[in-house]
Amino acid sequence: MKFTGSHVLSISQFERADIESIFEVADRMVPYAQRQRVTNVLEGAILGSMFFEPSTRTRVSFGSAFNLLGGDVRETIGFASSAIAKGESLYDTARVLSGYSDVIVMRHPQEGSVAEFAEASRVPVLNGGDGSNEHPSQALLDLYTIKKELQHHGRNDVDGLRIALIGDLKFGRTVHSLCKLLMLYNNITVSLISPEELKMPAEIVEQMRAAGHEVIESDVMEERIAHVDIAYSTRIQEERFASQEEADLYRGRYRLNQAIYTRFCEPNTVIMHPLPRDSREGANELDNDLNDNPNLAIFRQADNGVLVRMAMFALILDVVDQVDKCSRDVNWYTGSRF
Amino acid sequence: MKFTGSHVLSISQFERADIESIFEVADRMVPYAQRQRVTNVLEGAILGSMFFEPSTRTRVSFGSAFNLLGGDVRETIGFASSAIAKGESLYDTARVLSGYSDVIVMRHPQEGSVAEFAEASRVPVLNGGDGSNEHPSQALLDLYTIKKELQHHGRNDVDGLRIALIGDLKFGRTVHSLCKLLMLYNNITVSLISPEELKMPAEIVEQMRAAGHEVIESDVMEERIAHVDIAYSTRIQEERFASQEEADLYRGRYRLNQAIYTRFCEPNTVIMHPLPRDSREGANELDNDLNDNPNLAIFRQADNGVLVRMAMFALILDVVDQVDKCSRDVNWYTGSRF
Amino acid sequence: MKFTGSHVLSISQFERADIESIFEVADRMVPYAQRQRVTNVLEGAILGSMFFEPSTRTRVSFGSAFNLLGGDVRETIGFASSAIAKGESLYDTARVLSGYSDVIVMRHPQEGSVAEFAEASRVPVLNGGDGSNEHPSQALLDLYTIKKELQHHGRNDVDGLRIALIGDLKFGRTVHSLCKLLMLYNNITVSLISPEELKMPAEIVEQMRAAGHEVIESDVMEERIAHVDIAYSTRIQEERFASQEEADLYRGRYRLNQAIYTRFCEPNTVIMHPLPRDSREGANELDNDLNDNPNLAIFRQADNGVLVRMAMFALILDVVDQVDKCSRDVNWYTGSRF
Repeated sequence: MKFTGSHVLSISQFERADIESIFEVADRMVPYAQRQRVTNVLEGAILGSMFFEPSTRTRVSFGSAFNLLGGDVRETIGFASSAIAKGESLYDTARVLSGYSDVIVMRHPQEGSVAEFAEASRVPVLNGGDGSNEHPSQALLDLYTIKKELQHHGRNDVDGLRIALIGDLKFGRTVHSLCKLLMLYNNITVSLISPEELKMPAEIVEQMRAAGHEVIESDVMEERIAHVDIAYSTRIQEERFASQEEADLYRGRYRLNQAIYTRFCEPNTVIMHPLPRDSREGANELDNDLNDNPNLAIFRQADNGVLVRMAMFALILDVVDQVDKCSRDVNWYTGSRF
Repeated sequence: MKFTGSHVLSISQFERADIESIFEVADRMVPYAQRQRVTNVLEGAILGSMFFEPSTRTRVSFGSAFNLLGGDVRETIGFASSAIAKGESLYDTARVLSGYSDVIVMRHPQEGSVAEFAEASRVPVLNGGDGSNEHPSQALLDLYTIKKELQHHGRNDVDGLRIALIGDLKFGRTVHSLCKLLMLYNNITVSLISPEELKMPAEIVEQMRAAGHEVIESDVMEERIAHVDIAYSTRIQEERFASQEEADLYRGRYRLNQAIYTRFCEPNTVIMHPLPRDSREGANELDNDLNDNPNLAIFRQADNGVLVRMAMFALILDVVDQVDKCSRDVNWYTGSRF
Repeated sequence: MKFTGSHVLSISQFERADIESIFEVADRMVPYAQRQRVTNVLEGAILGSMFFEPSTRTRVSFGSAFNLLGGDVRETIGFASSAIAKGESLYDTARVLSGYSDVIVMRHPQEGSVAEFAEASRVPVLNGGDGSNEHPSQALLDLYTIKKELQHHGRNDVDGLRIALIGDLKFGRTVHSLCKLLMLYNNITVSLISPEELKMPAEIVEQMRAAGHEVIESDVMEERIAHVDIAYSTRIQEERFASQEEADLYRGRYRLNQAIYTRFCEPNTVIMHPLPRDSREGANELDNDLNDNPNLAIFRQADNGVLVRMAMFALILDVVDQVDKCSRDVNWYTGSRF
């Protein structure tokens, strides 16, 4: 795809080469995100950050990514007091708000709303999540993390990946998108581990199989995480079940902790999670005793989110080659951040 | 008036020459708002944006205008958790908050509150709307839009303007302010089209007539928009009426759509609205089928708001002549924004 | 203490020499806060401003202080929609959010939460208030104000200070912290004036006496403010009392106004208050008729807060010696702000 000036609404826009372009640029953003250098390539540019549904970390991650390129951020959070609530169409909202910024990131509870908004916008729009539909930057940061973690363990490619997806695979937007992205690669083995009620939609399973990937479905976790490169855990929300007992049963069954990891997993298996993980009694899908496990990649996922979002801004606003030219060394204390 | 260091609280501060100064500066802001150039003339300055009542577009428009001049913005939104709610006087709030910024824009639900705040502030204060009282930047952007639209159709002056104001003329702060501004010009013809219950206050009508302008009052729309340069529509809120039936009757009667426009209006008649327009069934004062009408100026109004607000900041902080000196070409993708 | 890269969680971290370092740097920030000069020493740096409990002035003061050093601010306000509310641990929140910024200021309703957060953070954390526990920048700005006010009256040192603390001394986090800081100095005389129900905790009184300071406790105000350098008033919240009558009695008894000041106080007695002061009928602990009293220092306290917070950022991020090197004259109108 042509990035310059484009909206990013869905991962279905991307071919494998596009994703590799994004990841290459993300790699080049590391010195800025890690504060070895600072760039002001987007000085004077404005990001319109429109979160009609709150999401602290997605909002702050996009905002920081834009600041790290030198730009300013104007934010809107919440819905109740917005003009949309007074009957304004998304068309009007988009026409108006796109006059205030150079690029917009938008999150909205309603499926398809961001695409509708983008159609009327006069500036590029990035989908920051539209209901149960799409959240492309999350899917990209997940795949980018997989790639980096594999590299760390000496593997150069996502092809041949063995991954387990664990938890709520029915409603989890994240795992749906990740599956779709993985279909762009070759020879993937996916273990889908969920309660019967929360299975991956059949359509996605069939697509993966039709594309030649191996898909295993199961409702027990332990054996299925024995031979994977990545164990990707997600949150099971109790309200998905008929009774509290049933919810507790399943949430308990998919808890990963250090003892289980040591007993079942290969030594290099990487643990991921879209966050937030629920650390309360009864949920606790990833136990805190994993926090010192060097293969717990959940916080590197969040860090990678900044890199991927910087890359998207740089590509869409066509400044990739100017980032370094507009840079200098950092002159304040940055410690050992990473 | 002297702009440098002044508060902007009411349109009654302005004489015609003042308005023309603002509009001249607004014209000079076009390359920055349209991202042909970027200026950092206000680098290091801080706008305190105090929205004790929410208003997304006014807030973002002011904030973006300040960013476009190179400044930073610190925002406060909402009322419930503010010190005012704990019994702090506006005097104290103003003394404290004015220590944190170089200029303040304030919106507050209570009439006169912004003026009271300004009196205690140590920095210039712009009124971003104080209840039903004043919203001077809205009135200015409306008049600026009228001027630009007339220019587009080959007319150099607001003198001699024929304008129809349609809808809720009783409670609409916007149309009151616009009438007051128009009185600074010569030979205006104003058609006031509203239900009997929502007529323009007699005092304003009398002032306009006393100043030699022609005022026509009516409760039907079609014939009255036949010979005007501007048809300025506003929202009729259903809660203004005794019954839903009556509300629907009137809201239905003042709907402007392309068929009515084609049948009744002169070919160059410009359509304006303070936004948001209500696009829901039953309201819909400006039909979406007008969206392709090149004379629908409602989004240009919003764009002009940024220009007028940039001009106000530049004049009040006395940097008009430095804006261009501190500028450079934009180096990121800007597409065809306008 | 070593400032570079450190958290600032509690005033108990500071020795007298540390405080004097902060105050020296705060003095050097005056030209920037008063807009004689502008510095961009922190250009490219990001402050993560996490206010899980709202506090407009603390938030804006920290944000403006960071902007005045040239940095950007990414804010989060409120709790309900945060990941913490969905069961995320403070550990996870800290790991994630600290990837988005160079330094964090955090306010949280729960005692100890900021320290817990700081432990997991990868960047320095400043405590912006954690429940009834600590609010170190408030204590520092109070002490800095005392020092500056004494200097203004020709005294070079806090040693020998005579201060009256008035109002709610039991629950007031501010006065507890101030007492602890004053213990770092010599020969302080403290008059504690409060209703019996709201007395200073015995532990603090004993510590002060043990350290050789003079402590006088009383439940009447007038005589006790006769021979002090500072009269520090605080808010008495009516909900602290059994009945409205009792609350009104006490709140009425500790009202300071110009007549009382003239009759009882020495001519140079400085009036302080942590703000907001309650100006409603029935509360009104510092009457508005004091507003023209040149010794009313309450707004200078707020201004000093910006200086102290700039100093903390400059010390922690180790840019003190670069602030002036990265500076230039201000080129916009600044009026007579102070």
